[in-house]
Amino acid sequence: MTLDPKRTIADLKELRALTGDANGAQRVAWTDTWLKAREWFAGKLAGLPVEHHYDAAGNNWVTLTGQSEKALLIGGHLDSVPNGGWLDGSLNVLAGLEVLRRISGEFNGRPPVTIRLVDWADEEGARFGRSLLGSSAFAGTASIAVDRVRTDRDGMRLEDALRRCGVEMDRFPEAAREQKNAAAYIELHIEQGPALERMGLPLATVLGTKGVERQTITFHGQEAHSGSTPMNARHDALAAAAKLALAIRAIAGKHPDAVCTMGSVKTFPGIVTAVVGRCEATLDQRDLDPAVLATMFREAREASERFAQEERCTVEWSRIWNIEPIAFHPALLDLCDQAIGEVAAATHRMPSGPLHDAAEVSRAGIPTVMMFVQSLGGISHNKIEDTREEHLEMAVIALDRLAGKVVAARR
Amino acid sequence: MTLDPKRTIADLKELRALTGDANGAQRVAWTDTWLKAREWFAGKLAGLPVEHHYDAAGNNWVTLTGQSEKALLIGGHLDSVPNGGWLDGSLNVLAGLEVLRRISGEFNGRPPVTIRLVDWADEEGARFGRSLLGSSAFAGTASIAVDRVRTDRDGMRLEDALRRCGVEMDRFPEAAREQKNAAAYIELHIEQGPALERMGLPLATVLGTKGVERQTITFHGQEAHSGSTPMNARHDALAAAAKLALAIRAIAGKHPDAVCTMGSVKTFPGIVTAVVGRCEATLDQRDLDPAVLATMFREAREASERFAQEERCTVEWSRIWNIEPIAFHPALLDLCDQAIGEVAAATHRMPSGPLHDAAEVSRAGIPTVMMFVQSLGGISHNKIEDTREEHLEMAVIALDRLAGKVVAARR
Repeated sequence: MTLDPKRTIADLKELRALTGDANGAQRVAWTDTWLKAREWFAGKLAGLPVEHHYDAAGNNWVTLTGQSEKALLIGGHLDSVPNGGWLDGSLNVLAGLEVLRRISGEFNGRPPVTIRLVDWADEEGARFGRSLLGSSAFAGTASIAVDRVRTDRDGMRLEDALRRCGVEMDRFPEAAREQKNAAAYIELHIEQGPALERMGLPLATVLGTKGVERQTITFHGQEAHSGSTPMNARHDALAAAAKLALAIRAIAGKHPDAVCTMGSVKTFPGIVTAVVGRCEATLDQRDLDPAVLATMFREAREASERFAQEERCTVEWSRIWNIEPIAFHPALLDLCDQAIGEVAAATHRMPSGPLHDAAEVSRAGIPTVMMFVQSLGGISHNKIEDTREEHLEMAVIALDRLAGKVVAARR
Repeated sequence: MTLDPKRTIADLKELRALTGDANGAQRVAWTDTWLKAREWFAGKLAGLPVEHHYDAAGNNWVTLTGQSEKALLIGGHLDSVPNGGWLDGSLNVLAGLEVLRRISGEFNGRPPVTIRLVDWADEEGARFGRSLLGSSAFAGTASIAVDRVRTDRDGMRLEDALRRCGVEMDRFPEAAREQKNAAAYIELHIEQGPALERMGLPLATVLGTKGVERQTITFHGQEAHSGSTPMNARHDALAAAAKLALAIRAIAGKHPDAVCTMGSVKTFPGIVTAVVGRCEATLDQRDLDPAVLATMFREAREASERFAQEERCTVEWSRIWNIEPIAFHPALLDLCDQAIGEVAAATHRMPSGPLHDAAEVSRAGIPTVMMFVQSLGGISHNKIEDTREEHLEMAVIALDRLAGKVVAARR
């Protein structure tokens, strides 16, 4: 078969019709709809000379054995958030399937190197709050003890939801066997942000995934009656948090790609007639440069202490989660630039703010790169998530070119 | 009987022991504990030549008939918030009882004018969210249709809770009959704020209750991924609200007694990984001067619109509730100053930020004044609410002096 980008779009639409509803995609990992998507995908493999299995963490592997055992991995994820979009995750899997078809056709089922397509299990972590679940098992960075007792909103444990799908968490470490002979990993993804659309570019090479520092910041003031407490007698925890909500913008603004977000503010007692005695805020800081991330963290912390003092409050910080920046492989970045240069008028490099399975693969020491395609309006995790079809077609072609270059380099 | 301020303190402690627990006062209106407090209070009337009844709204009236039908009303409320303090409301009732004892004793049960002590029903509105319930029925400003369907956290309707206590809401208008012959109303209350303690004063004359303007302010931005959305591409609803949270302080700061409070902020979706798409905040503004209140409202609204525009958001305002400022009676203010001047080294006048039953009585056209006694730490609605015993004794004496001056003026 020759490469047919329109077939990828048709596949995506077929999957959307099968697993979406009026509110968007519903392929939440470990649900019946997700299993249906995987069953549909397995059906798409009919006629291809591939081996197909699920590993010990539920990752879905399709292998086209080549003349060399060295393998190029192409990855994505069929799972979505609830009420999600039609492209996030699935584009990667189905564009990868098209590349697999092309390579199988071109080399008569026996390419120079082995090609493996992987549909990672539970990239989104939408149901149990643990993203990159399958790829972390593959990378050997899984946190089984912490994760097995996570529950969904109905109280079902992660461990039980996986067991229902035939996956035993105790066997997660066996998924690392899939690393064997992996020589490179490539992943196409929608940008999920507005940068490429603003620059008028269809595609970009992804430099790596930004490091993330997530904290809960609690300001403690003094609850007081809104009517009887003079303005100058207050210990207003909300005022301190409001100052920080504004200050983090200047802290991020010193660095070109850095972001700082206060996504949640909770006020206690949180009633119209009381000065806020306690205010809990979250802070999410990201940058590709570990030094920038460390500086931003320090500056935000110092600012919070200054604001607490100004408002006669105290402040405490508590880490929710963090991950270091992960830089992709220099030689693969070059190949990705070349591939994009062959299908688009300009190349561009940018970091990824969102995390992806590629980060876990890279942590496992496998040379990795990602390619972004423009998102309309920068919107994702929403039923209106979309990308122009011409850009989707360019993305499939560019991914295929990238795969070709990696195969040529590794042969 | 002669006036015995120590007896008032003993009464307060007895009531605390009977109706409080480790978490504070539990005399929430329409509960068994509140009924027990009222039963205890009725027992305290034994031996006094008084008539005692409950009106159609559950207000608790004790009448010492005088030579004139013209009546001086002395009021308070035995109900408390859950986990409340020992003084809020009860001090007024029990100091009033002591004044009644003194007057009855002095005039051998037949004072020059009639003296009526009233324990208002449900001043706090703690269970159903409707404060000043009994006094509004007395004043003829009750909102029966709106209030009857209010429910408590267990789903019980206000109307049914009242019926259980023998009160039929349809008969609320009959409570206005109690206005007959009322010539003046006086009320002692703890300040519930820190102003008197800061000035080193035990007592103050209350100028009136501040007008209150309560609004919900909703900023609409654009929910976006915290990792993929550049700082300059955001429509951050929290940032607009944070600017307003800080700006209201300057808006209040232009006026000596004005207060503006943002007591609640809610963020949507309110997760660590998303720019806030919608932010709901509450604003409570108070001042004794209607012109100041109107100016502060306009300035806050204009500021919110400016901040919304700066953050590329929109804003909408929705009124929760409002009440106009209520100024107490000039001649009674003078008598209150005189009474305080006889027991304390200095007099002081101040507005009340919190609302009180006195506001409803004043709205009914009855000349009204209140007296404040210092609160330690400005803390109220809390088990640690307290006032120095020497100040409580001074307050009882000053209230008695005030009552004496009103009787002398009205005889």
